[in-house]
Amino acid sequence: MAAPDVYRTIGDLRAALKPARMAGERIAMVPTMGALHDGHLSLVERARDEADRVVVSIFVNPTQFAPHEDFDAYPRNEDRDLEQLKALSVEAAFIPSVREMYPHGFATGVTVGGPSEGLESAFRPHFFDGVALVVTKLLLAAMPDVAIFGEKDYQQLCVVRRMVRDLNVPTEIIGAPTVRESDGLAMSSRNVYLSPDERKTATSLPATLREVIERLERGDDAHDVLSQARRTLEDVGFKVDYLELRDGETLGPVTEDTQSRRILVAVWLGRTRLIDNMAV
Amino acid sequence: MAAPDVYRTIGDLRAALKPARMAGERIAMVPTMGALHDGHLSLVERARDEADRVVVSIFVNPTQFAPHEDFDAYPRNEDRDLEQLKALSVEAAFIPSVREMYPHGFATGVTVGGPSEGLESAFRPHFFDGVALVVTKLLLAAMPDVAIFGEKDYQQLCVVRRMVRDLNVPTEIIGAPTVRESDGLAMSSRNVYLSPDERKTATSLPATLREVIERLERGDDAHDVLSQARRTLEDVGFKVDYLELRDGETLGPVTEDTQSRRILVAVWLGRTRLIDNMAV
Repeated sequence: MAAPDVYRTIGDLRAALKPARMAGERIAMVPTMGALHDGHLSLVERARDEADRVVVSIFVNPTQFAPHEDFDAYPRNEDRDLEQLKALSVEAAFIPSVREMYPHGFATGVTVGGPSEGLESAFRPHFFDGVALVVTKLLLAAMPDVAIFGEKDYQQLCVVRRMVRDLNVPTEIIGAPTVRESDGLAMSSRNVYLSPDERKTATSLPATLREVIERLERGDDAHDVLSQARRTLEDVGFKVDYLELRDGETLGPVTEDTQSRRILVAVWLGRTRLIDNMAV
Repeated sequence: MAAPDVYRTIGDLRAALKPARMAGERIAMVPTMGALHDGHLSLVERARDEADRVVVSIFVNPTQFAPHEDFDAYPRNEDRDLEQLKALSVEAAFIPSVREMYPHGFATGVTVGGPSEGLESAFRPHFFDGVALVVTKLLLAAMPDVAIFGEKDYQQLCVVRRMVRDLNVPTEIIGAPTVRESDGLAMSSRNVYLSPDERKTATSLPATLREVIERLERGDDAHDVLSQARRTLEDVGFKVDYLELRDGETLGPVTEDTQSRRILVAVWLGRTRLIDNMAV
């Protein structure tokens, strides 16, 4: 197995991909912030299935962190990330510097309304502007035929789909299922922040979501089910940012036209923020 | 001479351009709002020089007009436009509907700071957001190797350059010189709004700019020169929105680092707004 070729500039990445593109090869991209775990690797495997050539980007994007958030502390381990990509025979890793992505004089923003409204945005007001901007830049740098995003960040997936459609970015967006630990906790680079006790408590999050879904599918009143679940989460020690039932396509309120529903949650456990979501 | 093939959807345009792209042909785009005049045609000729295949888009973009502006009245004449493009052997015309460009649920915006600040933005606050959005969409729909914009809309050219660089749009932006009537008036689709008397007065605009440049190059004080020129314009009947000297690259204030200067002007003559600019 060969290690992936590492490109640190947009120019180098483009030059490397051009012959493949001209030869009609299909290119898949997996945008990540590094600190790769099995969740990311499942996205890479999906990318493998979709394309001849896989590009994984590793970039901890400063524009999606607020000043008080964990940009500096966010886990980074490039050597370990590259080892894991090597094991999956990834051809190319795009690892730009902040300066390469946001050079002197940078002045452009991308904003997305619609699916970005509420949920995460109520607590991280500029988060999706940062995400939409960096995803636009990453997709236009690599020009993949397809890009894989995890359903773990479900609202992000909906925002990216909306942005790609609205701006005519010529990339198909595929959402891949959340990968969970054996006890149900959704894999996340931020799980490493949890103390052993918090890690045990954290399993109540997916367990509570499953219970909510069971009751909703039984036909119980949504408002009652959600308030009870919120109390349950608070009782075991979570601080709840939101726990909401939404239309699974638009992320708007559930209406008569809703085809699929999604339950989405964000909580704090000590100093760690966890998000999760499941289809109802 | 064959008439250009007309594409009205992004999908049709892409499908038509794909074989050319895969064959390694170079594609140039000229984004326009139609009502084509010799100024546009000079952009098309430049595109011809640059590429194997020329795509001209014709789209009067509602998002760059404020509610009180002339979106409805803006001159439209598709048949005449297509005749002119035929005479220049343009291969493809992209003429989408508003609904094709901004479908139900559309929720994305592109904002550019830097060169968009002041000048036009002081009088048309959302104009460049509208321009940046539609140019992003047009370039990503056609994915040209190169796109030609007129220096007539100089601030727009600077904003488009900034946006393309910042978002990694894989298109080279070329600015082409302003084309003028024999009496010096810059060609513009809005010149048709002028009454015969206004049309005569309008020639004072480029004449005044030339005088400003002469005096500046002679070393006269910029502040004095600009105030006098403003008075001259007002005396002949213009209402002046702005008349400013800027750095020709950044469009910021002229500093010690300034390599080239640009004089930019916007005026009203009756109900018609005219803009112009020249290199100092």
